[in-house]
Formats: sequence, C-alpha cells, structure tokens
Amino acid sequence: MSFRVGIAGHRGYSGAELLRILSRHRQIEPVLLDHRDPGSQALDLPRIPSTAAAVREAHLQLVFLAVPTEAALELVPHMLSAGIKVIDLSGAHRLKTSDAHQRWYGEVHPHPELLAEAAYGLPEFHRSQIPAARLIANPGCYPTAANLAIKPLIDNQVADLHAGIVCDAKSGVSGAGNKPTLKNSFCEVTENFSAYAILEHRHVPEVLAHSHLSERDFSFTAQLLPIARGILETIYFRAARELTEAEILGAYARAYKNEPFIRVYPLGSVPDLHAVARTNFCDIGIRFDPKTGRGVIVSAIDNLGKGAAGQAVQNMNLALGLPETEGLL
Amino acid sequence: MSFRVGIAGHRGYSGAELLRILSRHRQIEPVLLDHRDPGSQALDLPRIPSTAAAVREAHLQLVFLAVPTEAALELVPHMLSAGIKVIDLSGAHRLKTSDAHQRWYGEVHPHPELLAEAAYGLPEFHRSQIPAARLIANPGCYPTAANLAIKPLIDNQVADLHAGIVCDAKSGVSGAGNKPTLKNSFCEVTENFSAYAILEHRHVPEVLAHSHLSERDFSFTAQLLPIARGILETIYFRAARELTEAEILGAYARAYKNEPFIRVYPLGSVPDLHAVARTNFCDIGIRFDPKTGRGVIVSAIDNLGKGAAGQAVQNMNLALGLPETEGLL
Amino acid sequence: MSFRVGIAGHRGYSGAELLRILSRHRQIEPVLLDHRDPGSQALDLPRIPSTAAAVREAHLQLVFLAVPTEAALELVPHMLSAGIKVIDLSGAHRLKTSDAHQRWYGEVHPHPELLAEAAYGLPEFHRSQIPAARLIANPGCYPTAANLAIKPLIDNQVADLHAGIVCDAKSGVSGAGNKPTLKNSFCEVTENFSAYAILEHRHVPEVLAHSHLSERDFSFTAQLLPIARGILETIYFRAARELTEAEILGAYARAYKNEPFIRVYPLGSVPDLHAVARTNFCDIGIRFDPKTGRGVIVSAIDNLGKGAAGQAVQNMNLALGLPETEGLL
Amino acid sequence: MSFRVGIAGHRGYSGAELLRILSRHRQIEPVLLDHRDPGSQALDLPRIPSTAAAVREAHLQLVFLAVPTEAALELVPHMLSAGIKVIDLSGAHRLKTSDAHQRWYGEVHPHPELLAEAAYGLPEFHRSQIPAARLIANPGCYPTAANLAIKPLIDNQVADLHAGIVCDAKSGVSGAGNKPTLKNSFCEVTENFSAYAILEHRHVPEVLAHSHLSERDFSFTAQLLPIARGILETIYFRAARELTEAEILGAYARAYKNEPFIRVYPLGSVPDLHAVARTNFCDIGIRFDPKTGRGVIVSAIDNLGKGAAGQAVQNMNLALGLPETEGLL
Repeated sequence: MSFRVGIAGHRGYSGAELLRILSRHRQIEPVLLDHRDPGSQALDLPRIPSTAAAVREAHLQLVFLAVPTEAALELVPHMLSAGIKVIDLSGAHRLKTSDAHQRWYGEVHPHPELLAEAAYGLPEFHRSQIPAARLIANPGCYPTAANLAIKPLIDNQVADLHAGIVCDAKSGVSGAGNKPTLKNSFCEVTENFSAYAILEHRHVPEVLAHSHLSERDFSFTAQLLPIARGILETIYFRAARELTEAEILGAYARAYKNEPFIRVYPLGSVPDLHAVARTNFCDIGIRFDPKTGRGVIVSAIDNLGKGAAGQAVQNMNLALGLPETEGLL
Repeated sequence: MSFRVGIAGHRGYSGAELLRILSRHRQIEPVLLDHRDPGSQALDLPRIPSTAAAVREAHLQLVFLAVPTEAALELVPHMLSAGIKVIDLSGAHRLKTSDAHQRWYGEVHPHPELLAEAAYGLPEFHRSQIPAARLIANPGCYPTAANLAIKPLIDNQVADLHAGIVCDAKSGVSGAGNKPTLKNSFCEVTENFSAYAILEHRHVPEVLAHSHLSERDFSFTAQLLPIARGILETIYFRAARELTEAEILGAYARAYKNEPFIRVYPLGSVPDLHAVARTNFCDIGIRFDPKTGRGVIVSAIDNLGKGAAGQAVQNMNLALGLPETEGLL
Repeated sequence: MSFRVGIAGHRGYSGAELLRILSRHRQIEPVLLDHRDPGSQALDLPRIPSTAAAVREAHLQLVFLAVPTEAALELVPHMLSAGIKVIDLSGAHRLKTSDAHQRWYGEVHPHPELLAEAAYGLPEFHRSQIPAARLIANPGCYPTAANLAIKPLIDNQVADLHAGIVCDAKSGVSGAGNKPTLKNSFCEVTENFSAYAILEHRHVPEVLAHSHLSERDFSFTAQLLPIARGILETIYFRAARELTEAEILGAYARAYKNEPFIRVYPLGSVPDLHAVARTNFCDIGIRFDPKTGRGVIVSAIDNLGKGAAGQAVQNMNLALGLPETEGLL
Repeated sequence: MSFRVGIAGHRGYSGAELLRILSRHRQIEPVLLDHRDPGSQALDLPRIPSTAAAVREAHLQLVFLAVPTEAALELVPHMLSAGIKVIDLSGAHRLKTSDAHQRWYGEVHPHPELLAEAAYGLPEFHRSQIPAARLIANPGCYPTAANLAIKPLIDNQVADLHAGIVCDAKSGVSGAGNKPTLKNSFCEVTENFSAYAILEHRHVPEVLAHSHLSERDFSFTAQLLPIARGILETIYFRAARELTEAEILGAYARAYKNEPFIRVYPLGSVPDLHAVARTNFCDIGIRFDPKTGRGVIVSAIDNLGKGAAGQAVQNMNLALGLPETEGLL
C-alpha cells in the first residue's frame, strides 16, 4: 500500500532533503506542489499547483510545506480545507499563542486558532498527539537538539535552575536556507565563525515551552559554522544535588531507551557532527564533574535530518500509521 | 638600533608566524636555533645550535621557544644560564606551583623555582612585571581570549559567581600544532565540529588564576572548528545586580581604554573571526538582557596572533624596551 | 537468497564506504576480516581472521580487499587458495605485466601470473570477463573517470592524437587514505590547492591500457582539492576532423545508452562534484568549438563511489550473479 | 613626499585588498570615492564624491577603479578629464579594439579611442609604457597567471603550437566579487568543484594578445575552487624540439631574472596556493618529460594580489615614479 504525498518548496535545502529521504521510502509517491515553470527542472516527478482543488483532485493524503513562514501561513488553510494533513516545516505554527507568535515573529498571526490546534511534532515528547492531528508543526532545528538534551535534566531534577541552563548552539549554513545573502556567501563564511541573534533567537520560546523553563533560566546563542550541515549544541548546567556522571547518564538512558532515533553515548564520550550527518539521529553525550557540580551535555543532529526533513518524515510515518523508522535508517 | 633574537621551533605554526611578524619589525634580526639539517630549508636566515654557548657567542638578547612543553623544559635553563631572556610559548612555565603543574600537565616540574620566577606574559594584566623578567611564560591561546573577556566582569562585580561563568571556546586547527594526527587530518575536520577535554582542559587553571575564579565557578569546553586559525569564545554570565547593557559595556571600555590591542565593540555588535585574522587584536563584544539578568560576551583572537606569536612579540617589545606595538599594527 | 562477503580494511575510507553501501544491499551479509582487537570497535558485525582457513570456515563467497597494496599482495593468494573470489581495491593487480608493475609501483610483483589472470573491473568496458574471474582488480579512481571520458574519443576517431589528450585531474583528500601525514592535515589543505606526481602518477598506465593511448599522446596531472571526496577531470582534445558538438555528444550517448551508472549531460552542460557525491555515477559533459576544433570533456565521480567502493560493489553484483545496480541506486 | 590616491569601490574584495596594501605603503594617502552614505562605515579615511570636480579639488594624483565594468566605462572619462591618472581594475579597457570588446563583453564600447590609448598594466611585459600612460588597464586575474607562464614558451620556441597550449585554471571564489549569488553561496561551493565558461571565458583574448597565440592554439577552462582566494593554472604543452627540463627552466630563469615578483621554482618543484597567499608574487614551476616531449607548467598567484590589487599597486608605483616594490614585499 502506498500514499501520495505533496511537497511544497522542493527547491530549498529542506525540500531537497525530503525528496532524497522519500526516494528510499517504500510506501510514498511524492508529488511536487510547484507554481513555477514545471518544464525547467530535471526531477522526474508529477507536479500540480499548490491549491486546494489540485491537491484534492490528485488524491494527496498529506502535504509537506518546506517553504518560508509567510508562504506557509497562506498555504496551510487551503491545504486543510482540502481535507489533507499538513506537516509545516516553517516556523508559522510552532508557538501556542498569538501573543507569543507576535513577539517572536514580529507579526500578527492570521489564524490563531491554528496555533492552538497544531500538534508540535517532536515525537519523543508528543508522540501520541501526532496521528490524529490535522496540522503538525515540525520543530525548529535548534530546539530539537536543545529539548532532547535538556528535558531529562529538568524531569530528573538534575539542574540547579537558579544557576541557569546555557545552550551554546552552532549550525551549518544550510540552516539559513538557499536564498543568497552576503552573510551566507562562501568568502564570508569560510575560515570564519560568528554569533548571531544572541539571547533573542526566535527558536528560544520552543525550548522554554517544551523543556518547561523560564526565560530567566535559559541563555541561548546561535552561531554559524563554516560547514554545510549539522547542529552541535553544548549545554551547561550546575547540579542541584549530589550526583555522579553515571547517574546522570542513567537518567538519559532510561528516558530514551525505546527511542529509535536518540543515541545516548557511553560514559566519557560525546558526539561530533560526522556521527549524525545525513541521518535522523540525535546523538547525546554527557560529562559531569562531581567535585564542582558542573556538567556539560553535547547534542548533535543534522539540521536537515532530525532538524527538518528527517523529523518531518518521522512525523509523516506517525500521521499515516506507517512504521516510524521507515525510510529513515 | 637593533636586537638579535633567537627562535627555536620555526617549523611549527607559531614559529612560522613569529618569523612572519618579525620580518615587518624594524629593529629585530632573527636567528634560527636549529638542530636539524640547516641546508634543507629555504629560509635565508642565520642558524645556530640551541646551546648556551652558541646563543652567547651569537650575542642574542632574547630567545623565543616555540617548541613542545618537553623541549621547553629542557631548553629554558640553558638559555637562562647564557644570560639571555626567554619567552616560552609552551605550557612549561605558565602555572605558579609544582602541584598545579603536576596536576594539569601530568608530570613533576624539573625546576619549580622557575615556575615561581616566571612572569605571566599577558601585558594587559601584568605589564609592569615583564621588562625585568628573565623568563616570560607566554599565555595559552584559550586563556588569553578568556581572561581578557572575564576579568572586567569580576573586577566590576558584574557576575553572580554562584550561577557561574561558562566559557564555550572554539579554535581553529593550527592551535593543535603541525604534528599530523588522524584527529587533525583534513577529512576528519572538514564539515565537522567536535568538543574535547570537556571540563578538564589544561588551560583552565590559567583562567582561574588570572581572573580570580574558583573551579566551582567556571565551566570550560574546547572545541575544534573546521578552519586553520582563530579562537572565538562565547562567555555566559548572570548579573549579580541590576545593570544595563551600556553600563557593562562602559566597564569594559574603561578597563581597556589605553590598550592598543583590545577593541571593545559598540553596543549591539560582536566580533567574528575574520575581524581578528592575522592580527594581534583581542576583539570583545557584549550582549546583556536586563529583563532576565543574563549576559553573553564574545571574545575573538587569532590563536597564532594574540594567542601565541603576536603576544610573544608584544612581550618581546616590552622586554627589550621597544614600543609595544612595533611590528604588530 | 543472500551471500556472505568479507571485507578486509574496513577502517579505511574505502572500507567504511563499502560497509555503508552494503548496509543497503538486500542480499549481502558482511563479515569483517580483522586482525586487530575485535572488541574495540562499535560495529555490530561478525569478525574473523583474514586467513584461508577462517574465510573457508565462515563460508564466504567473496572478499573485498580495501587494504594497502603491500597487504593485498600478501592476502590475495591466501584468499584464492580458499576458493573464494577476490575484489582487490588496491593497485596490486591492475597492470598486466610484471615489467609494468615494477616500473610504476617500484617493486617486483611476487605473483606475476596473477597480473595476467586478473580481470580489470571496469564493467562498462569489460563486463563479460567479470562473472568468471577469480580475481578482479578494481580500477584506480583517476583512471575510472578518465577512461570512461576518453575511450569514446578514441573509438570514434574524434581526437587528433598527435595534438594529444590532456587530463587535468582533481581529487578530494580521501583518495589518499586515512593515514595521517602533514600533506593531508587540515591546515595544509584548507584554502590551498596543489599538484603532485605531475606526468608520473602510477594511475597513468591504466588509462593508456584501457583507452589504447601511447605515453606520447597523454598528459596527466593529479591535484589535491580542499574537499573530502570527489574527482573531477577536465580533459582536452583537438578534433581529428570536422565535427559538431552534437555529433560528439551523440557518440557518447550511443556508447553509454545502456549503462546504468554513466550519465551523459545534455548539450551545453557539464557536471560538478555535488552531482555525483555519494553515488556510483560517472557524469560526463562535453563542450566543443567547431571553429577551432578544440574540445573539453568534464568527467566527475565520487572517488569513494564509482572510484572505489561503489564500483567494487558493482563488480561484486556481476561476480555473484546479482542485479548490477543492487544497493547502488 | 606623499601622494593622494583615490579608490572607487572599496567595499568589494579588490578594493578592500587595495586598502590593506596601501595601509603599509609609506607614501600614499588613500581617499575613498564614495557615493553611498559616508557615515555608515567604520573606515577612518577621507571620502569625496567620484566626480571630476571633487577629485580635482581633492588634489588626487591617481584613481583606482575597483568597480564593475559598467561603472568603470562611465567613470574613466570623468577622471581623465580631471587630469588624473586612472588604473582600471575592471575589464572595461583591457582589449585593444572595439570589435574585440564587443565580441567578448557583449556591448559596444562607448569610447573606443580609450581602448587604443590604454596601457596594459602587466609590468613584466610592458613596463616602459606605464609611467607615461593616462589610463592603465589592470590585467585580468587569469591572464596574469597565464601570460607570465606561457610567453617564455612562445618566445623561446619551446612549444609545438599545432599541438596547442592547454590552460586549466582554478580560482578561489573572491574572483567573482562579493555580490551574493546562489553559485557563490557557501553551501553550493563547499565540498564542490565546478567548471564554467569553458572555451569562452572573456579573459581568453588577453592571453591570446599578450602571449601571441591564435585561438586555434589555445584551450582555456575556468573552474571554481572551494577557497576564498588564489588562482592556480596548470598549463600543458608539447615540445617543438628536443629539450631537457633544465633547458626549459633556464629559459624561464633568464626571462624573469630581474623581476621582483616572479619566482621560478627549482628543478622538480611547483608552487601551491599557500605559497602566494596575500602576496604580489607569481610563482612558476615546470615539469617536462623529454621521453614524450610533454610538459606542464604550474603558475600560482593570489587573485586579489598579483591578480588584482597587488598588481594595481605595482602599476601605481610605476605611474608615480615610486620604487616598484614599495608596499608589496
């Protein structure tokens, strides 16, 4: 049995990665939602307009929106009105309230009821809500790596929240999309490293919401690595009580023991970015010094994998009742 | 008037950078201290053995040791016995006590009296001690960027030390020297990013000593960037009291207003690595959110410049009574 | 039905790529031939010693040798004596005579009869010889891209051989293996580009032999790109007679019309390295100026794909009677 | 004594490199010719409009145009009418006739008399014409490396022109300027390598004109390296007569024995790009196989140095009667 699934935005990096993953998925027939000149491209896939009528007529079961936030805000209601499920890879439906959306995205949300309705597609935290959802907000890349690393700290009362959690995040350039800018041009990025959106990145509220942190407790800096893909986050905490490295590691191992895409590293080791390149894994390693009570977590994902297209396919598998790992291992 | 100055270790990255800087210095005649086959190299400079007799006979006024720690431990007494000043770029004489040296370098120091004697060559903190010193310990690359960024936080009672200071450090590969290893090979580094020596890097005690911090208060992670040169450190603190971003920035501006090599960035901006490449500058930018009391400092140097050879030449200028910036602007 | 296949040298880049490809192959069970400490590695695969007795006992049908030339020279006779097929990814059995081997590899071949016996595993030229061969010499990476691009020029009498064929070849660093050297260290390679083995690379005789060229007619330069993987060769010729660009392109299209892994590009376009990364394709594009009679061919492969492990799996499929593209598309 | 010199286009990569070089030049005071908001930039240099009146009033002696071809076509007559010398780094005045300009640049030249008048600023070939010229056309980056490598082959009757000269050229991305495009974005360039303008690059006629070659005799391919700066050209020839490697090398050594910026490499060695980074050198190495009569020349420059700003300063030194190497060693 197979499903017809639409992709809007296949020319972007996330869209291209979606197509790459789906080409190995045994039960999906991709259809491109494409306004532009359909004859100009080499891809040998069916193309339809991105309208409610067209997606209904094409019998799509689900649509991925790998488009900018503004385009997603416009497309989602049309797709839902056609009766098909939507996985939105943009930031348009990730926050729960219109106030929060306005603060972090700088604009009034045109459909606040969809913010309330959307399921947050981080299966490790919200798996049960995904199958029934009409609209799935695919998480931001930075929050995916951060939440998976931080929440066990909170759930197990490991971290002293007064000391705060620091998340120093580094991303490859594909996270910024493929629109050419001086900032993303080769000569500006190579042999360079730079911080941006210090303390004010729009991904911050996703971490606060899903790891149950207050703004006072959390510092976040996004930084640009001279690589194409990959996110590594170095997360610092102070222990709230006496603990050993093995105890903390044990809490992570328990938290993720049934998760196919979370790999907790053995005592003394942490992941690098090569370990997760072109995968849907989130790899997590922990170091802790019981003498000082200070700990460090290293969390690594591929920003186009678990940080975007990989996680979107994982959500699609759940939404369509398919095995969660299909196409992803 | 000019000075004859020896360089041991000119084949390494720091040694080569020393030669590059000295070629623009108007008052220095470099001499290579070189045991190996002197005919095999293209450099058109005098070469002598690295013995007390040879450096005395060659009338050297000062010697740079750009060699591994073990070689520096052996060479320093010989050079001092010849009556010439030594700037040691290795880690051999950076810590003050033999206990500290043994803990962080894993070996008993053969001349603990030299640890006590050596001046720590961070001119911005210890300028007055450098001219009279026989032995100058050139600071580690990471501690240079860290101390210059952290000490004003402490001196001005800005940071809440219970919350702690987090220093997330990233370095280019030249910081590891030019000895080939799998870890430093191109294919392992390109499109990668990795953490190492988490919470246990031997540069940590230099930060504790010169910023007056205790181990409980300080977290440090070293990480490898896929670039040749540059160190950027992202430093996190929680404010100990009510402050504005401008007040904190003002404290830094005052601290460094007469320093030729420290550039404090204007409100709202932070440095990247291109800003300091091939210079002796340490560039510092600060962001602070008064609502949450959380702040971030970005400190950038060239690890071979202010982090090694540049700072060594700055120390040499002070040691020989030359203008501090000669050859460095 | 499935086959047990051994891999010697799985720690090298070609060996690791073999494992990656075989993990997607539905009919192969890999077994590691591994002398070293079997407990130290994370791979969850069976390990046996690389001896005739062990491979016989393990019922292997075929062995890949992804080891240095010297190791392959020693292992091949043992594996053949165990009655199993060998695909040798090293240079040990690529040349036909002991004289040629001695000239280009600098040593007397210990088993010249195996040079005569070995099939040259470039399926596009020698497909019929592969199924029956006991020993398959997997071609060099540079010759694979070169022969596939050059032979149609010769077969169709396009090129003026007096003017000669020039092959300017560029390779990613993984082509040199993962043994650390200064030449392959990150700082030496990044922001650099260098030529080596100009006019005397040991891959030259493979091009001469399989494209039927004499040494007088062929210039070859190997060069190191600051990337991990990929080979692009820019090949220059002068036309022997009046021709159009379309006619030359037509000759290539006919030559490769049934080849699953050769993609001839449309008029006016040529491949880059991203087009072939992590694939078994060889992509070929051609430009020709009829006014001057001068032409250029661009040939691109992944040096670890069609240039090593991919082609080795293609040869394995032929040797075991499996579909040629299994695991490779 | 010092000279006031204007720079139009200081925001581009060549303009920024001009400023970097001039900051070390002891006799030049730079003035920015700048239409845009003069308050927005950090550079502490005088700014004037780029008009004839303004440059006359500011007593400039010479102006560098580091602007696109279209802007240079417009500015040159204004600057000349103000009575000051112009060094044009663009392609606007490099070809000698309006026919050639129209063929290669696709537009009618508005001032063909300036094409005839302009001196071609390759000092090694045309040094005597530069001091008296009002307008100096700074050569293209590719032709600089190519002409310096090829002309001795022709002058000494080394090359068989029927076999032709092949120039396989590779350039860093800064050669394309700093206007953001998808082609020059980090993700498209990293881990990639691509050819462009095969056989039809607009730099070809500069090589033909100054090395005295016909189109039939010369093949040229431009290619994009994943680095910021540097050009390496691999040049292939067939010998016209019996020769040794030493004889060919000798011809180059004689041709360039008095040239301060041309370094001919010793027998058996060729340059890489690190050797010329941030310099005004053109480094040349030669390999020749007398058995086959086939030879290879490797020519390396920094495209922003000898390929643009460095050479422009060399021309300025000649034009103003200053020592040719001032600011450049």
